[in-house]
Amino acid sequence: MLIRPALPADADGIWRVLSPSIATGESYALPVDLTRDEALAYWSAPSHEVYVAEEREVILGTYFLRPNQPGGGAHVANCGYMVAPAATGRGIAQAMCAHSLERARARGFLAMQFNFVIASNERAVRLWEHAGFAVVGRLPKAFRHPALGLVDALVMHRFL
Amino acid sequence: MLIRPALPADADGIWRVLSPSIATGESYALPVDLTRDEALAYWSAPSHEVYVAEEREVILGTYFLRPNQPGGGAHVANCGYMVAPAATGRGIAQAMCAHSLERARARGFLAMQFNFVIASNERAVRLWEHAGFAVVGRLPKAFRHPALGLVDALVMHRFL
Repeated sequence: MLIRPALPADADGIWRVLSPSIATGESYALPVDLTRDEALAYWSAPSHEVYVAEEREVILGTYFLRPNQPGGGAHVANCGYMVAPAATGRGIAQAMCAHSLERARARGFLAMQFNFVIASNERAVRLWEHAGFAVVGRLPKAFRHPALGLVDALVMHRFL
Repeated sequence: MLIRPALPADADGIWRVLSPSIATGESYALPVDLTRDEALAYWSAPSHEVYVAEEREVILGTYFLRPNQPGGGAHVANCGYMVAPAATGRGIAQAMCAHSLERARARGFLAMQFNFVIASNERAVRLWEHAGFAVVGRLPKAFRHPALGLVDALVMHRFL
């Protein structure tokens, strides 16, 4: 598996990864009816550095890295990761997280923060804890899960 | 003092309130060199409902109300408040906060969250606690204060 910077020609491949996760509405606070163009504009916003994870030229995952806040908060990084449903459980998120931590260090960030980890997404919580993140905040009933109703969201953090 | 929806003609008055707070860089994670147009574009973003607090037709404070997250997080409100330096200590932030809580309830939000309250801004922390907010997260060294160096930021929350 190769993790490399996203290119304009990757738009279709990135959308194929984003689309199912957005449509289920279970892991990201994004409108479930976000269009392809809106989703790509969000994922590849000007402040985002976007990477893709590919295998045999098929994009299986993607992540963005950005400053979590401007100004006095710009030394803390933030990332979003998505993996194609057919490729889950193969360590792709873990590999992208390790890659993003390395890249964030190289850019001089001092810490990384995830603002909104859905507490019911136990696979993600375990993964981030394994990657050295600690829960520094719990947002009560902050996410309306399509099947579970209102669930907590977690703020997770680690220094780099 | 009157709190009312902002009008296009209020741009100068709002900028006079925002400008000093942005320039000190002590209370908001915004670039200290943000221009007038950038600051107004941020404050009056399409998803923001903006109010001003005025006295004898002089704008002394302003706040915005928005959903803190899209999609599954859109039932939680978020606000930003700023008060002109010459008008601090007169209860304007408190009055705007009460107004915003009422407005958020009227719009059907279930809770309000502040994502980044600078811990060294003790006046603000006391004010929000007095208004019923609890600290639900502490972001270690998340803000580079121009005089104090790296200080914590707080996530504060209350149900409506």
